[in-house]
Amino acid sequence: MRRHNLGTLLGHVHHNGEISRAALTSRMRLNRSTIAALVAELESLGLVEQRTPSGARSGAGRPSLDVRPGRIEAFVLATELRVDEITVARVGLGGQVLARASGSTPVSRDPEQVADALAVILTKLAAEAPARSRLVGVGVGIPGVVSDDGGLVRFGPNLGWTDVPFVRQLADRLDADVEIRAGNDADLGVMSEHIRGAAIGHDNVVFLSGDVGVGGGVIAGGRAMPGVGGYAGELGHMRMNPRGPVCRCGNRGCWETEIGAHAVASAVRFPHGDLAGLAARLASVRRPNDRLRTVGRSLGAGLANIVNIFNPEVVILGGVLRDVFPVVRDDVLSAVVKGALAAPGEQATITLPDLGADSVLLGAAELAFEPLLEDPSAVLERR
Amino acid sequence: MRRHNLGTLLGHVHHNGEISRAALTSRMRLNRSTIAALVAELESLGLVEQRTPSGARSGAGRPSLDVRPGRIEAFVLATELRVDEITVARVGLGGQVLARASGSTPVSRDPEQVADALAVILTKLAAEAPARSRLVGVGVGIPGVVSDDGGLVRFGPNLGWTDVPFVRQLADRLDADVEIRAGNDADLGVMSEHIRGAAIGHDNVVFLSGDVGVGGGVIAGGRAMPGVGGYAGELGHMRMNPRGPVCRCGNRGCWETEIGAHAVASAVRFPHGDLAGLAARLASVRRPNDRLRTVGRSLGAGLANIVNIFNPEVVILGGVLRDVFPVVRDDVLSAVVKGALAAPGEQATITLPDLGADSVLLGAAELAFEPLLEDPSAVLERR
Repeated sequence: MRRHNLGTLLGHVHHNGEISRAALTSRMRLNRSTIAALVAELESLGLVEQRTPSGARSGAGRPSLDVRPGRIEAFVLATELRVDEITVARVGLGGQVLARASGSTPVSRDPEQVADALAVILTKLAAEAPARSRLVGVGVGIPGVVSDDGGLVRFGPNLGWTDVPFVRQLADRLDADVEIRAGNDADLGVMSEHIRGAAIGHDNVVFLSGDVGVGGGVIAGGRAMPGVGGYAGELGHMRMNPRGPVCRCGNRGCWETEIGAHAVASAVRFPHGDLAGLAARLASVRRPNDRLRTVGRSLGAGLANIVNIFNPEVVILGGVLRDVFPVVRDDVLSAVVKGALAAPGEQATITLPDLGADSVLLGAAELAFEPLLEDPSAVLERR
Repeated sequence: MRRHNLGTLLGHVHHNGEISRAALTSRMRLNRSTIAALVAELESLGLVEQRTPSGARSGAGRPSLDVRPGRIEAFVLATELRVDEITVARVGLGGQVLARASGSTPVSRDPEQVADALAVILTKLAAEAPARSRLVGVGVGIPGVVSDDGGLVRFGPNLGWTDVPFVRQLADRLDADVEIRAGNDADLGVMSEHIRGAAIGHDNVVFLSGDVGVGGGVIAGGRAMPGVGGYAGELGHMRMNPRGPVCRCGNRGCWETEIGAHAVASAVRFPHGDLAGLAARLASVRRPNDRLRTVGRSLGAGLANIVNIFNPEVVILGGVLRDVFPVVRDDVLSAVVKGALAAPGEQATITLPDLGADSVLLGAAELAFEPLLEDPSAVLERR
């Protein structure tokens, strides 16, 4: 119980960056002395520190102390693994990105080679951290179907992976006694947007991660929707057209064949495999051509399905869809209005991530922080 | 708190028909004396009675008393409203169907006329109940999009309804001071199958109600998935084919145009509008023709979408799909296997309702019992 409360309190500090003891008392529904004792324990671990808020009035009544991340400078290493690029960040307790690095995904996409490349980047980034700081977890966002416990990539068609024990492969290469957790990229995207971004305060949210493949992360009724095995949300494989092109999954006409990065690149006659370049190219489009508008209409038609299926408040377009949407906005939205039933259509907003390109990366950071927020002292006792 | 516990205890009696005080103690995590007091209060209201279990051993130790529905004989009136037929049942506390009635849906489908016809059937069925019994609620399952509070049918394309205040219209015609609740048919189907049918013990379930339209009811992570406004689960309007036939919703190629009752009837050259006759016709099919097999493949393709989207343990085929599935089972299942990703595909079972044709009807009964199970004494004090 105490362990649980310690973690929950640390979670409030993490999600808010800095929070008053008064706010902790009301949010956790515990009395002031219990909160004070929990804060003291986290302070003795070095995870938080207390200070008098800068705006506090002098005179009558003591102001409530603010609690914020402490001298240990706990951080995680977060990774977004994409088909052509690996992005990594060092993220501190409180959610700030402290440093970044990136590299190309090995062209072979062989899991061992990918683990090699990622381990090099992670090790370098960890080595650059101040000596007093402390690594507390590693999180990886993966474009594929990841098992419930995060250990196994069951299916990553665009990486060519099937049943890859990527977490173990990465652990073998990292010299750090911390937990490594992996998750589906879109599931992580919706998590971070829900905690820190465009979906704060919303209980029914769909996040789309658009890369070569398109994944979906869903929050329904305020909670993640993993399905029985953690595989839910494979929205990119909705069949949109029985005569459509063949998808990497083997079927015809999956949504991602119509709106994924390859379809988008073809529409603007840009080479496949350079997502950063594709984003720049899309940003320079003044008037979308017919093929790009077709992508927009297909995006809208699938979004209408999503609106009819989930009745969400917000649908967030991540990855390449973030770059596509502004260019063909009218085509997308008119297809949504046409395809969605009136009642759920009225309630849904289609929007871009508040965290920009970082939704998945910051979701991987949240995943990496989970062990610390479940049991702060146990994580610090390791090594 | 006490009111809540009273309702919860009555809910256990209702869901189990008969349950021992020992089982109530462990399920509700309350001590024995609290359970005894709650049972005594419900007994004094006449809602339950206690008896020594028939198999109880004599001799050492008192057997735990069984609790079951009591002398009041509380019942609800449940309705499944379909495009061509109205089915009604009197259902007792404990879940038994005590009596049934049915009638044709007025051909006009005008809401006032439908309310007239339904009120006549309901009034007759209520009048036939024993004098000592007590009506405690009315529930209606509707093939359409129903607002969160159940009062307004926002969109029932196959009834031709938009923004119909059906609950009020029905209340105006019924001489009974009980609450009337309405819900989407598929939402009610998944509810009853989860409580009493094919989905007991499963936390991720999709129920399809197949009539002229096809609706979906979803349980995700053990809870109903209503979306923000109660409109989630409109799976019949997934776009399956951009060149498909025009749906009543105005779009092209919605799934229900390929697998709804009209498509099925056309496939076996049976007139539209006679669902009972269609069921009999399907039961007589020895070898499905190509058109029916096409329906089966489309059913499987959409089910694959559902498997990829929800990663469910069970998908339950209700309504006309119950009659279609056994006839084209191989076509359906091979399309599911082909279209579903391996990981969620392995975990999903496609099955028929345990409650046969009664899933929606019994879900409407559960809906009707909700006020009693929320606050037993308040409902009995009415009138």
